Amino acid sequence: MNFPKIFLAGLAWGTAVALGAKVVTKPVAYEHAGVRLEGYLAYDDEKVSADKKAPGVLVVPEWWGLNDYAKHRAEQVAKLGYVAFAADMYGAGVVTTDAKKANELASQFYGKPLMAERAQAGLDQLLATGLVDAPRVAAIGYCFGGSAVQALAFTGAPLAGIVSFHGGLHAAPADAAAKNKAKILICHGAVDPFVSAEDLAAFKKSMDDGKFDYQFISYAGAVHAFTNPGADALGKLNNIPVAYNAAADKRSWAHMRAFFNEIFAVKK
Amino acid sequence: MNFPKIFLAGLAWGTAVALGAKVVTKPVAYEHAGVRLEGYLAYDDEKVSADKKAPGVLVVPEWWGLNDYAKHRAEQVAKLGYVAFAADMYGAGVVTTDAKKANELASQFYGKPLMAERAQAGLDQLLATGLVDAPRVAAIGYCFGGSAVQALAFTGAPLAGIVSFHGGLHAAPADAAAKNKAKILICHGAVDPFVSAEDLAAFKKSMDDGKFDYQFISYAGAVHAFTNPGADALGKLNNIPVAYNAAADKRSWAHMRAFFNEIFAVKK
Repeated sequence: MNFPKIFLAGLAWGTAVALGAKVVTKPVAYEHAGVRLEGYLAYDDEKVSADKKAPGVLVVPEWWGLNDYAKHRAEQVAKLGYVAFAADMYGAGVVTTDAKKANELASQFYGKPLMAERAQAGLDQLLATGLVDAPRVAAIGYCFGGSAVQALAFTGAPLAGIVSFHGGLHAAPADAAAKNKAKILICHGAVDPFVSAEDLAAFKKSMDDGKFDYQFISYAGAVHAFTNPGADALGKLNNIPVAYNAAADKRSWAHMRAFFNEIFAVKK
Repeated sequence: MNFPKIFLAGLAWGTAVALGAKVVTKPVAYEHAGVRLEGYLAYDDEKVSADKKAPGVLVVPEWWGLNDYAKHRAEQVAKLGYVAFAADMYGAGVVTTDAKKANELASQFYGKPLMAERAQAGLDQLLATGLVDAPRVAAIGYCFGGSAVQALAFTGAPLAGIVSFHGGLHAAPADAAAKNKAKILICHGAVDPFVSAEDLAAFKKSMDDGKFDYQFISYAGAVHAFTNPGADALGKLNNIPVAYNAAADKRSWAHMRAFFNEIFAVKK
């Protein structure tokens, strides 16, 4: 959905936009730590209502910000019958296609408490919709967002599961195992040059040592951003090694669905 | 199905045994390199016939031989609508629960052409049923059998895909990439002590260098034999680090099904 920015800014909870047969989408204004944010809610209003709650899925965007790609993912999640909320990490309307700018924006968060806190603000919005069956909530994230959902889970956020698609991978913090409630699915490009063998090994060691419930999947030939059909253009524009991989995209989506089937199957 | 051995020996193609609602099973006598073998065919005769062919799945057992566990897997595959054939690698009726004996039996095959050749003899039996839609054939294997299906694929056998469950992992032979036709799914116990970090790295490097179409999945907390509910008893009996892991078993089965959905979706 491409809304003119000025139109978007005026919308809030009140207005829903019909998308395809059943999915409605709404921009949602909220605030965190003094920053005005605007997320993107999507759900199927034939399947979901306050009287007919559904599992909820937080979607945390790539380092480009809450762009059409992230919104499209929220819509796809909504089509599965879940309530999807694409979080805004940077600020209302702050998106870029410039890797230098994206790196500056993302650097405010990496390795800092703000990363989980800002993601939590999005999670709060998802839960505040009144549409979500609260014990059945997951968070998925792409690239920077993959790191963010890991950070969110490691603070002990009430998540049944997280999925990281081509997210950064580092050893979990020492206190994460005791706090974490989420099952973890890592979807990783087998030849992603942004994740070193050392970081991978440290991540795995922290998962094993902390007895996390995780699944780690490597997809052949996939590099960073392998789920994003726009990755090749962004890679060319910025001269960075990112690329779409259709097979890995489809497979990781199928694996996410199987993961949701497991973690959402039983009401706790 | 537990047949008295003497009864089994007298059966061949002619006699089918009804299993549950729809799945029929048949012991199948065959021979390879002078060794008398007896495999185990399973399919749903309401869904599959010579006029209504289905995808075929070769099942290669653990190093214990073609025991009830492997037969049960063939039955489960048959229930999915596929023609399953559990191969006999050792010889008719040769099964053991003694790890020393199993190691002797398996050692005839590891690293030798016989491993792929004996698995190919099973594949030939599967294809000879006349029930299989030949371009849609896969091989799955457990433990020793996981290594065997890799070896079979690497000879260029006509397989759309292979699944290795807690199989041994070593670098693929130098000529494998040019010969291999199969997509590859590796289901691996994240803390399997039988696969060293060095072997894992060598396997992965050979997959990446050879541009194999593979997916590699690690399951948290899972060790060798994680799919076999009898593993704990066998581990205790033999003082070896094998154990069942129900979560990893269910997840890897779901991942196998998603893999089959992909590789069997389109008739070539």
